[in-house]
Amino acid sequence: MRLHSAILSSLAHHRITSRFRQIYSLQRPANATAPMATSEDSLRRALAEKQSTIDASGNTIRQLKSSGASKSEIDEAVKALNALKLEKTSIETQLKASISGDANGSVMSRDAFRQAVVNTLERRLFYIPSFKIYRGVAGLYDYGPPGCAVKSNVLAFWRQHFVLEEDMLEVDCPCVTPEVVLKASGHVDKFTDLMVKDEKTGTCYRADHLLKDHCKDKLEKDLAMSADKAAEFKHVLAVLDDLSAEELGAKIKEYGIVAPDTKNPLSDPYPFNLMFQTSIGPSGVSPGYMRPETAQGIFVNFKDLYYYNGNKLPFAAAQIGQAFRNEISPRQGLLRVREFTLAEIEHFVDPDDKSHPKYSEVEKLEFLMFPRDLQMSGQSAKRLCLGEAVSKGIVNNQTLAYFIGRVYLFLTRLGIDEERLRFRQHLPNEMAHYAADCWDAEIESSYGWIECVGIADRSAYDLRAHTDKSGVALVAQEKFAEPKEVEKLVITPIKKELGLAFKGNQKMVVEALEAMSEKEAMDMKYVLETKGEVEFEVCTLEKTVTITKKMVTISKEKKKEHQRVFTPSVIEPSFGIGRIIYCLYEHSFYMRPSKAGDEQLNVFRFPPLVAPIKCTVFPLVQNQQYEQVAKNISRSLTAAGISNKKDITGTSIGKRYARTDELGVPFAVTVDSTSSVTIRERDSKDQIRVSIDEVAAVVKEVSEGRATWTDILKKYPAHTSASADE
Amino acid sequence: MRLHSAILSSLAHHRITSRFRQIYSLQRPANATAPMATSEDSLRRALAEKQSTIDASGNTIRQLKSSGASKSEIDEAVKALNALKLEKTSIETQLKASISGDANGSVMSRDAFRQAVVNTLERRLFYIPSFKIYRGVAGLYDYGPPGCAVKSNVLAFWRQHFVLEEDMLEVDCPCVTPEVVLKASGHVDKFTDLMVKDEKTGTCYRADHLLKDHCKDKLEKDLAMSADKAAEFKHVLAVLDDLSAEELGAKIKEYGIVAPDTKNPLSDPYPFNLMFQTSIGPSGVSPGYMRPETAQGIFVNFKDLYYYNGNKLPFAAAQIGQAFRNEISPRQGLLRVREFTLAEIEHFVDPDDKSHPKYSEVEKLEFLMFPRDLQMSGQSAKRLCLGEAVSKGIVNNQTLAYFIGRVYLFLTRLGIDEERLRFRQHLPNEMAHYAADCWDAEIESSYGWIECVGIADRSAYDLRAHTDKSGVALVAQEKFAEPKEVEKLVITPIKKELGLAFKGNQKMVVEALEAMSEKEAMDMKYVLETKGEVEFEVCTLEKTVTITKKMVTISKEKKKEHQRVFTPSVIEPSFGIGRIIYCLYEHSFYMRPSKAGDEQLNVFRFPPLVAPIKCTVFPLVQNQQYEQVAKNISRSLTAAGISNKKDITGTSIGKRYARTDELGVPFAVTVDSTSSVTIRERDSKDQIRVSIDEVAAVVKEVSEGRATWTDILKKYPAHTSASADE
Repeated sequence: MRLHSAILSSLAHHRITSRFRQIYSLQRPANATAPMATSEDSLRRALAEKQSTIDASGNTIRQLKSSGASKSEIDEAVKALNALKLEKTSIETQLKASISGDANGSVMSRDAFRQAVVNTLERRLFYIPSFKIYRGVAGLYDYGPPGCAVKSNVLAFWRQHFVLEEDMLEVDCPCVTPEVVLKASGHVDKFTDLMVKDEKTGTCYRADHLLKDHCKDKLEKDLAMSADKAAEFKHVLAVLDDLSAEELGAKIKEYGIVAPDTKNPLSDPYPFNLMFQTSIGPSGVSPGYMRPETAQGIFVNFKDLYYYNGNKLPFAAAQIGQAFRNEISPRQGLLRVREFTLAEIEHFVDPDDKSHPKYSEVEKLEFLMFPRDLQMSGQSAKRLCLGEAVSKGIVNNQTLAYFIGRVYLFLTRLGIDEERLRFRQHLPNEMAHYAADCWDAEIESSYGWIECVGIADRSAYDLRAHTDKSGVALVAQEKFAEPKEVEKLVITPIKKELGLAFKGNQKMVVEALEAMSEKEAMDMKYVLETKGEVEFEVCTLEKTVTITKKMVTISKEKKKEHQRVFTPSVIEPSFGIGRIIYCLYEHSFYMRPSKAGDEQLNVFRFPPLVAPIKCTVFPLVQNQQYEQVAKNISRSLTAAGISNKKDITGTSIGKRYARTDELGVPFAVTVDSTSSVTIRERDSKDQIRVSIDEVAAVVKEVSEGRATWTDILKKYPAHTSASADE
Repeated sequence: MRLHSAILSSLAHHRITSRFRQIYSLQRPANATAPMATSEDSLRRALAEKQSTIDASGNTIRQLKSSGASKSEIDEAVKALNALKLEKTSIETQLKASISGDANGSVMSRDAFRQAVVNTLERRLFYIPSFKIYRGVAGLYDYGPPGCAVKSNVLAFWRQHFVLEEDMLEVDCPCVTPEVVLKASGHVDKFTDLMVKDEKTGTCYRADHLLKDHCKDKLEKDLAMSADKAAEFKHVLAVLDDLSAEELGAKIKEYGIVAPDTKNPLSDPYPFNLMFQTSIGPSGVSPGYMRPETAQGIFVNFKDLYYYNGNKLPFAAAQIGQAFRNEISPRQGLLRVREFTLAEIEHFVDPDDKSHPKYSEVEKLEFLMFPRDLQMSGQSAKRLCLGEAVSKGIVNNQTLAYFIGRVYLFLTRLGIDEERLRFRQHLPNEMAHYAADCWDAEIESSYGWIECVGIADRSAYDLRAHTDKSGVALVAQEKFAEPKEVEKLVITPIKKELGLAFKGNQKMVVEALEAMSEKEAMDMKYVLETKGEVEFEVCTLEKTVTITKKMVTISKEKKKEHQRVFTPSVIEPSFGIGRIIYCLYEHSFYMRPSKAGDEQLNVFRFPPLVAPIKCTVFPLVQNQQYEQVAKNISRSLTAAGISNKKDITGTSIGKRYARTDELGVPFAVTVDSTSSVTIRERDSKDQIRVSIDEVAAVVKEVSEGRATWTDILKKYPAHTSASADE
């Protein structure tokens, strides 16, 4: 089941959370997992002390006034009070900054930055709220033309970087999925969020969101709160994901949380399944769901794919496609949506051999990693060498590490700033009980650290779940070069004796005996040999029975085996494409003053690989000859497969540059003669002169990454723009 | 509404059929629309005559025998009877061939061919029935690794050929769609098929399918049927799509059709909506559907896209994505599925100017076209020049023709056989009342002619529907260079008089007066001026009122207008990607004997553009040196973006060639030295020798279509294989 350990183990916390939930959940506050005292605590204490000093000082002044003290004496006391108030303001500012995690105290700057990015994205149609003319639907967005081009570039690169370079088997399965598949995977029963309803209007809210908002709001606004109270709220935030329905309900009651819109009382929390349900076929008797992830389509095809790969391990299958999640109340704009594109890899390996043939290609990489122990001890992420992390046992195995390294390369080549990218290891309470290890690629954005890729070693869990449910063995075989002698446990229930003793219950007892693990069986053997009988619990009978020596023989026998049959482990990197793209927008966006200095111009510094359009073509002035040249250049670029856009409006060249900078177009060709043209690079604004015959080839070379702009600069003469009014 | 004219006009036939239904419906039998007598009729008559001659001849023999005629006399008569029987068999064979549309009478060959293709496709995982380990779901298929690669190549070429080369605005909208959007488009009310239920078991069937099967079965098996009866069944098949629920029900009763599986009686036909329904958000009060087409996502964004295009027409928007259709009982394998990929284009034009700037690039193209009049007069499709079809008024306008030409180029470049591709014009009863013209690209497969692309001029219908429902004007403006003087109708209700006469009903009367068309208003003006009063029907009051001269003034005034505001027309090419790919499989498949001649080998002759893998790399023998060379070649191909596969098994080279021929891999590199290798082309089996340094560049060139195999053959020495056991 793609679910937390907490669900299936007998821990007290039953909060139901899927593996997928982990990838798509709100990141926990950076300091939530840090048990040590933060500077915030000492600031709160300092603030409380300052406040009592101020109160005392106010009292003193009132006493001075009522006792008729001299003006100079009073003035001095007032001056001292004002100084205290200034100090208090300064502590408040520091405290606010500490709460928001913003070092220089500019609480607004993140929001303002995000607003600038989002405004540009919406104005230039990178995305559009879906069905806008009908007032939209929360959590549904369209990719407009430049957004769609960026997405298609990201996916094409994903195919090249993973599917092609790693020889993966790509598949494409339907979104409509019958219930039985998602029953086996655990989604039908466990893929839920806890919901509360406004008791009068019926409006639904996510229970944990309301509690979270309450705690954050108190922490941010009630600066005079005691350090103890603050610590309590912070503890609630830290354990939010682990709270059961009952615990969440109790906290909501305790804090007196009501419906945010109406102030009406709220219902108790109850689970809401996040899958979009539908019905397959006309009869109404075959329930189906829109898949919540693409992975299941791969697991159910394991047998065919293994055969396709020549019955050899390891191999990886991959799938890109839509996934659906009926969020209770989507927030955070493009980061939490009801329909999104996932790109998932399932890499199947022998559980006894998780080495990777291409491991040496990534082991020297260094980047920010945030292992479990650094999180638990309240430290920050650290630059680590991947190979060392494996040899020190921080990362569980080579294959997992190989994918961490490949994900790092993928994201940074797309243009993700490596200083704002970290790989965070899951804490024990975040991980499913069967998982061997799990790391999230988190990208820092204006919303904080966002989980964009999950890379998990899920052991044999998924294949076993489908084997159990379907009855089709999803296993691999390893043929031995020579037969091997193995010691095998043999349990032989003596049916005659068991029949006499248990009559109608015989079958259940036999099954329970046969299902014993090696250890249980050997323990039983020992007790039977020493005491002659043993108490034995039969779960299916819900009672304990007495087994005597005559009823079962237990032995170890040596057998020759020609092959080993086993369920492969799966290592699963799962990419939230929309989240990666949104973070890419934030990391690529900057503003610079116009030449006249009278306005700020927006630029996306997309690498050519992801830029929605690689090149714009402008005639410098409106002129038939230049327009014909521009048309020819555009046509030859198109023929070479380079996306381009002509702009033949009479707008000033500076404005036209600004327009395409805002779309992140890396190169602009300006036609100012009929023999040669200029090519301008977006970020440096450098220009070179290139003859008309060469221009398409040069743009193609630099767009496809076969040459850098620096290489090109060396080969062609610089152009110093006199005419351009940039 | 994306629906047939028949629905909205007041014709007697109410069969509800969407535009989409047209694209995805079963093609009608080639002769169904032909009103003239077919050879089948004369064959049926000949068969009936032959049968009565045989009966008569049989009687004669019996009489001869009973009257004790001589043995030689009887033998002669029996000989004559046997000759007659042989003639009858020959007529039956011709008749069967005529019914199945198979000229040489090989009724089984199509099925056998299909079986060979489908077996290969399934065995090599081009596709996999979805959720196979759970016994699958009818109408859902996965693309396995080679199928997924073919699909991704087809879509990449579609993007290059349409989006990039035509400067289209690509968008990407969600599949989950709120009800209001599909209410506006007409799908909620009209996107239905007629269904009947087994009255005892509740099993559902498509009513038209049962009737169709009954008629076809009778025609095929009851060869002795009278020509009149045969004509009746054929008429039913021809008008099947136009039958109302009542008419269908009556025919089912008349023919005594029962449930095919149980022979139980059937319910009356009733409409079943084909959309997968779901619910958006947790409250259960916001119904939604999985989109049945991608087009609506473009229409609702018209305003933003028009702005993005600089408020200029024409422009086209495009979308590739999943669409869903909850078929009652899917048949025809990969051709009728419940979830499929559509690629749709909406090209918006000024309805007064449907010329196309690039029309000259396609007007000289010639291919099979099947205009309306050829269909009506029972003729076959003809090779026509596209430009002539436009100038003769067969194709409605240049833009429509431009897209027909571009679709022809797209399909043939993919590898569709142009002899088995035709463009069929819709008959008047197939077309929506608002549509100006509509042509389907039909591809001939073992199932007959399959509609794979629909190219329709849908006029302003869709944008108007969403304007009406949303209240947001989806219009374009044409600014005049100089203000134009236009005559405008001005209707001024005199509210005081109307109020006196109609009191509370005044508002309704005023609205009805203001809503008059120009003709109605001018007619009223004439009657008022001549008679002083007029009877006027107010629909909202459901009655007729008397309007007098004092109550309204009607005049025409000259006004200066600065711009023209209008709803653009839309020309919509819509591609069923899965259907195109299936037809491509059939057109690419062939069998040839193995070298030893002991078996038939399967080959897909995919052009490199669509081949799932471009190149295989084999070491001739298992040898570390050769394997290293193979690895290096494979790596350099991957780096160049050329998909490739190594095969280092010890299998004979002939077997390895056969394996990759069956996947349609166009080139195979065999490593038989450490300095040079052979490259073999799949269909010709020609081999050349190329040095190791050049091999990646050569394969890239010929895979990307920058050189043909013939070009390459001229440049490199031929290799005559001595060692290869092919």
